[in-house]
Amino acid sequence: MVLRAARPLLSRAQTWTADALNPQLLKAQYAVRGAIPLRAGQIAEDLRKGVGSYPFDKVVFANIGNPQSLRQEPITFFRQVLSVLELSSNAGNHEHRKQIENLFPKDVVERADAYLQSGGLIGAYSDSNGIRQSREEVARYISDRDGYPASPDDIFLTAGASEGIANVLEALIANDNVGVMIPIPQYPLYSATITLCNGRAVHYYLDEENAWDMSLDELKRSIAAARNEGTDVRALAVINPGNPTGQCLSREAIENVIRFCNDEGLVLLADEVYQTNTYDATRPFFSFKSVLRSIPECSESVPLFSFHSLSKGMLGECGRRGGYMEMTNIDQSVRENLLKRASINLCASVAGQAMVGMMCQPPKPGDESYPLYNEQFTATFESLKRRAQKLSDAFNSMPGVSCIPPTGAMYLFPRIELSSTAQDAAAKKGLAPDAWSCSSRRDWCCVVPGSGFGQREGTFHFRCTFLPPEEDIDGLVDSIRAFQEKWVATYGL
Amino acid sequence: MVLRAARPLLSRAQTWTADALNPQLLKAQYAVRGAIPLRAGQIAEDLRKGVGSYPFDKVVFANIGNPQSLRQEPITFFRQVLSVLELSSNAGNHEHRKQIENLFPKDVVERADAYLQSGGLIGAYSDSNGIRQSREEVARYISDRDGYPASPDDIFLTAGASEGIANVLEALIANDNVGVMIPIPQYPLYSATITLCNGRAVHYYLDEENAWDMSLDELKRSIAAARNEGTDVRALAVINPGNPTGQCLSREAIENVIRFCNDEGLVLLADEVYQTNTYDATRPFFSFKSVLRSIPECSESVPLFSFHSLSKGMLGECGRRGGYMEMTNIDQSVRENLLKRASINLCASVAGQAMVGMMCQPPKPGDESYPLYNEQFTATFESLKRRAQKLSDAFNSMPGVSCIPPTGAMYLFPRIELSSTAQDAAAKKGLAPDAWSCSSRRDWCCVVPGSGFGQREGTFHFRCTFLPPEEDIDGLVDSIRAFQEKWVATYGL
Repeated sequence: MVLRAARPLLSRAQTWTADALNPQLLKAQYAVRGAIPLRAGQIAEDLRKGVGSYPFDKVVFANIGNPQSLRQEPITFFRQVLSVLELSSNAGNHEHRKQIENLFPKDVVERADAYLQSGGLIGAYSDSNGIRQSREEVARYISDRDGYPASPDDIFLTAGASEGIANVLEALIANDNVGVMIPIPQYPLYSATITLCNGRAVHYYLDEENAWDMSLDELKRSIAAARNEGTDVRALAVINPGNPTGQCLSREAIENVIRFCNDEGLVLLADEVYQTNTYDATRPFFSFKSVLRSIPECSESVPLFSFHSLSKGMLGECGRRGGYMEMTNIDQSVRENLLKRASINLCASVAGQAMVGMMCQPPKPGDESYPLYNEQFTATFESLKRRAQKLSDAFNSMPGVSCIPPTGAMYLFPRIELSSTAQDAAAKKGLAPDAWSCSSRRDWCCVVPGSGFGQREGTFHFRCTFLPPEEDIDGLVDSIRAFQEKWVATYGL
Repeated sequence: MVLRAARPLLSRAQTWTADALNPQLLKAQYAVRGAIPLRAGQIAEDLRKGVGSYPFDKVVFANIGNPQSLRQEPITFFRQVLSVLELSSNAGNHEHRKQIENLFPKDVVERADAYLQSGGLIGAYSDSNGIRQSREEVARYISDRDGYPASPDDIFLTAGASEGIANVLEALIANDNVGVMIPIPQYPLYSATITLCNGRAVHYYLDEENAWDMSLDELKRSIAAARNEGTDVRALAVINPGNPTGQCLSREAIENVIRFCNDEGLVLLADEVYQTNTYDATRPFFSFKSVLRSIPECSESVPLFSFHSLSKGMLGECGRRGGYMEMTNIDQSVRENLLKRASINLCASVAGQAMVGMMCQPPKPGDESYPLYNEQFTATFESLKRRAQKLSDAFNSMPGVSCIPPTGAMYLFPRIELSSTAQDAAAKKGLAPDAWSCSSRRDWCCVVPGSGFGQREGTFHFRCTFLPPEEDIDGLVDSIRAFQEKWVATYGL
């Protein structure tokens, strides 16, 4: 008999506080929306209301990949299709639908009807793995991209990539001894979810000296160390292009990872949400699926989940919460359990599901909507590329800062030198040195300290998106430079 | 040293199967989308393709509260506002926005602009607790409904009610000894989530003899039995109006529950997603919040979460995944952890968030959109009321079936008599008797066996929504009656 159980948690005199919560929730951390962005939000609110005194008149949120909040234009075709869907229903067309149909290109109306005819009523729950039309569009995209077949039956439409990743991690972590290999630095969804599921994050380090490359030796070191501590390593997660590190993996690096998973019996999670965000022609994107299929001895054996999202690319439709997961070499019994898990959440937003289909099958040359689509896509792409270069050059010209120019994704992860004086000052505040540096900033750019993503002991970084509007970049650079120069003058290098 | 950990999970000769998965995922059940609905989906697909041989030419999905899939019309105002938002962006209006503005009532455009001006860009991540405009609209709705103040700071916008409920349960279940009291019958999100979190579901039975009422004696019996087994009972969940049972709780019953939670130190979860689905003027809806505030000795002490959703009511906008959670008497330290949890998922669909605001502040008398809104709302409401009555009368006229007429929600939960012959036959198939009965059906109505919701030992039920279109109800009743008569003729009563 557990005596404690017989006592109520609360009495009239007590308050229910965090002490009583799930300890895994207490431990989980998600710095991208942590203390520093929350404080920046308060400052932005103060500035809006005209209260407080700050040496700047706005805050730029470079902490999170949220393009449309920084004035990136949505792509018109996707929005027009969704407006038609908003005015459609199972019972027939609303009066206004016909009127707006006349305003829009013909391919917009055709696409909307395709969703409607295959269960894509955006006001109704869909099947838990998603509407058929979009899953077919995703499968066609993947087979065209890879040159290997893909099936709509292998696709789940998810609430962003995050939901798919979280559900797979939850399924994998069978007990508190299970380990999942994650890169360091990593996107903190991984560490947070592994903590929530009471599993073990097994760190492998990306090689900053080699432009954040993955090394097979490091994978071997990492798994051996974990097994030596009794960890039951079951899976490996890769983010390619990297977040926060911005590197595109070479084909050879991907092959190494796949062979490693095959040799070690690991399930592979490939987070490929930045697959269209690649800026260096010598470093093209290779999907894990295509490389897997090209290695005969791994092709049918390595279980692979790959993830994609509406939130990144040139769409930046973060607020939709749309994404997909493709399953390769996943046993039927596992699929059934993942479908059951998805069904407990019912389904992802159906408008988001429709947009996932459109992302994968956008207008093509010859379609009425193609010219505008192409113009919008290209303008965003070229601008991202320019901004990445400009910000990265600027960081490299500041004292105490060095930055690997990104070949992909939406982030810079510059390294900052923090002197022992600065580190001692942070220790007195009870903060990680880089967290203290980021929270001390008196420029107007909100960034996330490297400790929120993980970094080699003794090194310090921050993550900064290159999403601020082009017209703001020069001012932003001046502001960060002024802060950095003052910092170095105060604390030394 | 755990030897097993040193061996890889897979080798080239092995396959990764369900045996290796998280055992809590394997145990979780969600019958609303379980084996019977999946089979019905296959039959519907066969009928669509013209393959197979069935004694009917369509399937009606009465397994799930999904109104728009059964031809319920969406409410035009909400859809028009979202169409305008689809064609808006931070960078200015798209060319077509101005054109569609001219088609729509003025209050549609004003409302869309209100969301845009408060962070409601539907393509961008919002704050993790949701956009301010909608949280303010929710708070105004609650204070008008209850006559007690409500604050936007106490509101989280969530991906349906489900996400809020799951996050609160996950936070509560600190270890495998923690129990949460849930009604039997219940909506299986509760049992599934408690299983996933490795907590203990503590059952309290609703009283079918008294129209599914809650009894204080039963609550006391239940908590005593659980504590006697060493369970650390920390929370109590109530669904009002009931799912699957359709009852509206009296004010007195609600007071009893609140006092019980106060006496026993329990956190209270009030699932109030059917708060506008009430069909009996003598049984109006009382919110737990309003009753809590009216009891001086509980008003400031009982921690209460209440949940609402876009998916039910007269909207039936299930595919949006929109809802809200209000926190009353919840400590700041708990709120911070729930905000952190929400931030790991980033945010709920922003279009859904906007619609939650509209649900709470629909057009008012005098607004240009009010007459149509009111006509649509009333037509759906009256039709639901008629369908509930008609189906419930029909069930009560069938041999071996009895049904409490619902005063709320969207479901009937008729009791069926299954003879010992029928029970033996089910046992031979390895199925629960009601699951076998439901899966044997040769009518065209897909329903969910009572065992998916829980029921008193030795009683059998099924859940049937009253959402099928009115023109289908007579045919549906004939089909169910024919099946039921044949069943009774075969197996007796």
